[in-house]
Amino acid sequence: MNEQKRATPSHPIHTLLAERWSPYSYADRPVSDDDLQSLFEAARWTASSYNEQPWSYIVATKAQPEAFAKLLACLVEPNRAWAAAAPVLAIGCMSLTFARNGQPNAAAPHDLGGAGASLTLEATARGLSVHQMIGILPDVARSQYGIPEGVQAMTALAIGYAADPISEALRERDSAPRSRKSLTEFVFGGVWGTTSEIVG
Amino acid sequence: MNEQKRATPSHPIHTLLAERWSPYSYADRPVSDDDLQSLFEAARWTASSYNEQPWSYIVATKAQPEAFAKLLACLVEPNRAWAAAAPVLAIGCMSLTFARNGQPNAAAPHDLGGAGASLTLEATARGLSVHQMIGILPDVARSQYGIPEGVQAMTALAIGYAADPISEALRERDSAPRSRKSLTEFVFGGVWGTTSEIVG
Repeated sequence: MNEQKRATPSHPIHTLLAERWSPYSYADRPVSDDDLQSLFEAARWTASSYNEQPWSYIVATKAQPEAFAKLLACLVEPNRAWAAAAPVLAIGCMSLTFARNGQPNAAAPHDLGGAGASLTLEATARGLSVHQMIGILPDVARSQYGIPEGVQAMTALAIGYAADPISEALRERDSAPRSRKSLTEFVFGGVWGTTSEIVG
Repeated sequence: MNEQKRATPSHPIHTLLAERWSPYSYADRPVSDDDLQSLFEAARWTASSYNEQPWSYIVATKAQPEAFAKLLACLVEPNRAWAAAAPVLAIGCMSLTFARNGQPNAAAPHDLGGAGASLTLEATARGLSVHQMIGILPDVARSQYGIPEGVQAMTALAIGYAADPISEALRERDSAPRSRKSLTEFVFGGVWGTTSEIVG
């Protein structure tokens, strides 16, 4: 754990939540299949609307350089620059319609976000870090992997062991102080914008 | 913990993730402000695109019956029926545009989903349960609370202590076996629909 990056909560939260952060620098150290299986298993048990489980993942590790390069090409260039160092990359996709009736599933991105959070906390529990990115090229992913209509690539995930930054630019990013809005700014009571007395 | 509802993972996952489930039945027992503060604090430290933190929550407890009734009225009727028993209700909202430049934030529902997952795991760690719902009436919420343009109510959360069901209908829902797709159905390798050898 990078103590500098630990959350500084105003109210106690579970260690896993406090220790989670999104590094830009990764060690040149593979992640075991056992660990990866548990990460996707964590995503699997996430709550979803009508238990639709709208998430799917495409995953590649550096053990297969061609597969890894193919996945890296689905990221926007600024993300490619640092994510290339991660030993594992994944793309998070969502089904836009319910399997049972073909109707739009408005909860799909929400539930993919929940799955990503579960996966990330399992990673934290295993000494791993995950950096999720919205900056991807969904059309590249669609054509490269044959993602069907009705499914959308939405995020990428860099997975690995956080490491000391290898450049000044990365050091700056990885040592930036963490900042969050105060609870009083986003937990409201009877009127929008008025802090709930529970947190006020 | 309801042992019947514990996840049955195929690969080991953290206890908090395995114990989380979404009850329909709640004990008539208040949740302390300390606990609620920590739940929203957990949401606060979630990862978000550009650290936008697009989530906001409106919260009401049964200690204030009028405020609670007002929030309950934002749920679709089938959810109102069971969620009325929860001691705490919240509505999860998202900012649709970035505060810094007014551009659309495509990650907003994804990041609200991550925040909901963090909040839920903090609840699990405290012996509490959370049942998230997409079945709400966003327009009712907007007019009742004065939610501004550019912000959208998306989910509701029932928060409390899971209890023995008080009706046969609730017992049926709360004792339904948990089911999930297999990892082989949603973790892919080089081609969409082809299981990754990492989990295959």
